[in-house]
Amino acid sequence: MSADTITGTETTSRATSAEDIDALIARRVPGHSLEAPFYTSDEVYQRDLDEIFAKNWIFVAASAQIPEPGDYVTVEVGAYSVILVRDDDEQVQAFHNVCRHRGSRLLEERQGAVGNIVCPYHKWTYGVDGKLLFAESQPPTFDKSCFSLRSVHVRNLAGLLFICLAADAPDDFDAVAEKIEPYLRPYDLDKAKVAVFDELPEAGNWKLVMENNRECYHCDGHPELITAYFPLFAYEAEDITPRLKPLYDRYVKAGDALAKVRAQQGVPLTDHRELDSRVVGYQISHLPLDGEGKSFSPGGAAVCKKLLGSVKEAAFGDLSLHMQPNSWFHFLSDHAVVFSVLPTSTGTSVLRTVWLVHPDAVEGEDYDLDALTMVWRATNDQDRALVTGTQIGCSNPGYVPGPYSMVEDDVEGFVNWYVKRLGGQL
Amino acid sequence: MSADTITGTETTSRATSAEDIDALIARRVPGHSLEAPFYTSDEVYQRDLDEIFAKNWIFVAASAQIPEPGDYVTVEVGAYSVILVRDDDEQVQAFHNVCRHRGSRLLEERQGAVGNIVCPYHKWTYGVDGKLLFAESQPPTFDKSCFSLRSVHVRNLAGLLFICLAADAPDDFDAVAEKIEPYLRPYDLDKAKVAVFDELPEAGNWKLVMENNRECYHCDGHPELITAYFPLFAYEAEDITPRLKPLYDRYVKAGDALAKVRAQQGVPLTDHRELDSRVVGYQISHLPLDGEGKSFSPGGAAVCKKLLGSVKEAAFGDLSLHMQPNSWFHFLSDHAVVFSVLPTSTGTSVLRTVWLVHPDAVEGEDYDLDALTMVWRATNDQDRALVTGTQIGCSNPGYVPGPYSMVEDDVEGFVNWYVKRLGGQL
Amino acid sequence: MSADTITGTETTSRATSAEDIDALIARRVPGHSLEAPFYTSDEVYQRDLDEIFAKNWIFVAASAQIPEPGDYVTVEVGAYSVILVRDDDEQVQAFHNVCRHRGSRLLEERQGAVGNIVCPYHKWTYGVDGKLLFAESQPPTFDKSCFSLRSVHVRNLAGLLFICLAADAPDDFDAVAEKIEPYLRPYDLDKAKVAVFDELPEAGNWKLVMENNRECYHCDGHPELITAYFPLFAYEAEDITPRLKPLYDRYVKAGDALAKVRAQQGVPLTDHRELDSRVVGYQISHLPLDGEGKSFSPGGAAVCKKLLGSVKEAAFGDLSLHMQPNSWFHFLSDHAVVFSVLPTSTGTSVLRTVWLVHPDAVEGEDYDLDALTMVWRATNDQDRALVTGTQIGCSNPGYVPGPYSMVEDDVEGFVNWYVKRLGGQL
Repeated sequence: MSADTITGTETTSRATSAEDIDALIARRVPGHSLEAPFYTSDEVYQRDLDEIFAKNWIFVAASAQIPEPGDYVTVEVGAYSVILVRDDDEQVQAFHNVCRHRGSRLLEERQGAVGNIVCPYHKWTYGVDGKLLFAESQPPTFDKSCFSLRSVHVRNLAGLLFICLAADAPDDFDAVAEKIEPYLRPYDLDKAKVAVFDELPEAGNWKLVMENNRECYHCDGHPELITAYFPLFAYEAEDITPRLKPLYDRYVKAGDALAKVRAQQGVPLTDHRELDSRVVGYQISHLPLDGEGKSFSPGGAAVCKKLLGSVKEAAFGDLSLHMQPNSWFHFLSDHAVVFSVLPTSTGTSVLRTVWLVHPDAVEGEDYDLDALTMVWRATNDQDRALVTGTQIGCSNPGYVPGPYSMVEDDVEGFVNWYVKRLGGQL
Repeated sequence: MSADTITGTETTSRATSAEDIDALIARRVPGHSLEAPFYTSDEVYQRDLDEIFAKNWIFVAASAQIPEPGDYVTVEVGAYSVILVRDDDEQVQAFHNVCRHRGSRLLEERQGAVGNIVCPYHKWTYGVDGKLLFAESQPPTFDKSCFSLRSVHVRNLAGLLFICLAADAPDDFDAVAEKIEPYLRPYDLDKAKVAVFDELPEAGNWKLVMENNRECYHCDGHPELITAYFPLFAYEAEDITPRLKPLYDRYVKAGDALAKVRAQQGVPLTDHRELDSRVVGYQISHLPLDGEGKSFSPGGAAVCKKLLGSVKEAAFGDLSLHMQPNSWFHFLSDHAVVFSVLPTSTGTSVLRTVWLVHPDAVEGEDYDLDALTMVWRATNDQDRALVTGTQIGCSNPGYVPGPYSMVEDDVEGFVNWYVKRLGGQL
Repeated sequence: MSADTITGTETTSRATSAEDIDALIARRVPGHSLEAPFYTSDEVYQRDLDEIFAKNWIFVAASAQIPEPGDYVTVEVGAYSVILVRDDDEQVQAFHNVCRHRGSRLLEERQGAVGNIVCPYHKWTYGVDGKLLFAESQPPTFDKSCFSLRSVHVRNLAGLLFICLAADAPDDFDAVAEKIEPYLRPYDLDKAKVAVFDELPEAGNWKLVMENNRECYHCDGHPELITAYFPLFAYEAEDITPRLKPLYDRYVKAGDALAKVRAQQGVPLTDHRELDSRVVGYQISHLPLDGEGKSFSPGGAAVCKKLLGSVKEAAFGDLSLHMQPNSWFHFLSDHAVVFSVLPTSTGTSVLRTVWLVHPDAVEGEDYDLDALTMVWRATNDQDRALVTGTQIGCSNPGYVPGPYSMVEDDVEGFVNWYVKRLGGQL
């Protein structure tokens, strides 16, 4: 592992053609961060949209964000805009947010409720099932049935909504959903209540936001988080330095206690990691928390009095789910936090974070908004600053890819999956 | 007319080469809105500048904006900047707004008055006829006559100033001017006074601004306008729905009354529509107004006490002129409003609007500024919002071109002209 | 010299390929300003970074800005960011400002002081000599010595710091340094004190900022400067118009007086001009000042009580140094002002200006900050406005290159050097 093995240099750090991108993919050095153009080239960004975001299942919202018929959220994925709306049969539908007449955007707000979807331009009117109901001044030959809103694939996995923009969605999703669903069942997210919906602009390529989330090597920079979260994610026993030993001992002990609670609750007891070996890459692990072991808060205390779904024990740790390419999730006894990264340009992204609580939990009574959101609002903002520094650093022609440490395996898992999908090798 | 005939898809929605643009032109589906790259591609925008804005006659100002020798306006057309200045012989001249020495911009203001045109950098000094009068520290071989300002073709059509940036301007202009001039003669715009000069930035490609103006299918969105303006532009008798019947009856009656006034005034009585059949495409129609039938105002009341030029009757309706590629005009008995759309980037434009009144009309006495401008300031702003929504909607890869309704014939007339000129087929 | 010899036209004013740029270089007309794409094309800008800024010696700072071990400045050159830091042996080192791990920017501030250089992301820690001292969680095979910060060539020429980003720096530097050093020796800049460090954003391509500095044809626009500075830079006797005659007589007389002082001080008495005949192009001239002849101030009065280094006489004129591609300098008896132009995008730049005084000079006692900086802050800002107008003017497709006057020889000297280096002909 020496610098000599690194092929990236200033003179090869731009990518402006499909061949350049193919060459970048081909010469990728495993175990190292990606070459600069993956983060800085507009052409790579465009290929990311085409091959990653338009062809994979993308987590975009919690179903709890649209509980009633007519409720909708809109999601921007690059230049795409998609409406997710609950129809009159209470099913979630997804449509391109664009009128079939002359292309006006239909719904401008991030979320809301509608009877029908009415274009602001010429009042073409669509039902929440996407059917064109009304368009004035049409010739007799006009066939309304040909002008329904264009639909987008959508799946509800235990309360988590995924879309796929491709005509043919990867059929891998069902198999993965079947594996994950038993872990999520106790939390009953489909019935949860949205406590907060945040949107944080990031000054970095979407992959830097993801890579940042995939390791805890930087967790010393998250003082609020690590009062409850063990900063040992992806650490093996052999990675434990003397500095980390007391923490590790506590972690092992808390893990043993959690194992018993998990058994009592009747949830699956094994963790899964298929980050780069299948199209719908994921990882699920049930982790203990420090201190009281109940929630993300100073000392691990609970932040909501009502437990989610059928969870019986407050000290239920953190069910952690990673999904490729753009999401991660923390499910706790008293709340859940779901995160989706949405690309907005080569060097910018948006992070959406939603905090979910029990449907009957009352703000001010059962939970305090600041206490509920404090840890992850602080953590998101700290990560935002690190991502900004990495985007600007990678843009420096003096940057060359460096080696991942022993505790950055999941960054490698993300990057592997990404490079394989981009190159069409999964 | 089914969605199956639409060829635009996400995968073909980018245009980055001359061949791509040629293919877009070739596969254009008549009767449908244009494919996305026409509104979103930087390369198409560049071709628009080269083939549309640099080769056609472009309306840019009213001659009344520069009444005296030395008066000037500057106009930005894409990256071009042009000075229109009245010379000492009272003729309008047009020049590239750039010094012949090292390229400094000469005049920075939108309008003003000068004796000579002096470069702010090294004080090269040009007469208002463009001749270089003074340049210090030149060698004996320096020939001032070689460094006049580069001129731009300019024509004054009854008080409306058109420029052409090409070396050879289309010779079609004179024939069209001859047709239009008799309609404009009564308004004597060359002698008019500028009441207001507005500039409105639009977040849309210039063609979306034009298309928006070319139909009244969306006029329900203009509550101020339609108190006087019949929202029936381009409607034929067979397009009249039951909802529109009472309006239409009023329109026919007002039209009959206007016909008599037009005959008394001695103006041409026929309308003309040559929107896509010649290089200098245009349409002229004299329309009745609702209510009092006099002006753009609530109830159609007059907004200026003095009538323009030789107009004898206040209830003189609305002489409506459309010119390709970038302008429209309303001439009323008591004022005129002239509009020019100027491209500033792929996704942005500027709309310039000038309100003209009788040269002796006094603000506060003969007219009130707010009352004069209220209808079109409101309408322009409403249109701006619709254009914004269409630009962002067309940028969505989920957009596919849709069919024009029966009352969008003039949008088709604009688009036909545009596509033909872009493809070199007119 | 007629306009007919000018080849630039609207249709050829874009450059998007390497061949386009080669053609632009090949058809350059000597004695004329450059064609528009040199100032407006992103591709030319990129070649400027590659061939000019990454391959030449670039002035970036005064050594007095980092007097103590651990003191650093950071410099942005296009997307590059470079750290200049004084090491524990008091030598100046230069490194790419990017972590060898995952590419985070290391130092965010423009200047400061550090013990070690610690990456904000994962705490990789480097000494001020660039060596990697610490990186947690590495495998046994990890060899720290392979991950030192990547160094950048740096030279200290009598207190002026130059970097070269290329692997092989031009070896011409030493020969030039040897010529220049005797002129600078009396000012002892290595020991000077920084009074002010300004950074001025410019809305123009870096070359326009340089060209503006290379002539005094526009100096009437600098009323503060020309109370002391003779606006005759690059004027020969035959360039003197009647208007300039009284000024010129004063200039000759002051020059004679200065010649005696220079002889007494024992500095080299000849001027040198090798602007376009070698890789490290430069020009050095010792010029008299108007009025008291001591400093840049109204009437040429001194602005600091303590003279620099071993300078013995306050009326010591202005030692003026130009260096290709991005810097100029004024050395006076009582202070020095050093200027570096740093490109930030095709149409924007940053000008850094540092005022240096005697190390023992005390603000408020020996000098007043406003009085010290007044002339060049005003001049820089006036030049900024001229550069803005030229950038916007050159972007106008109506721009064609024009002829340099007789007093713009050094603009030609700059442009010659630039075109030769860009074309690989020096």
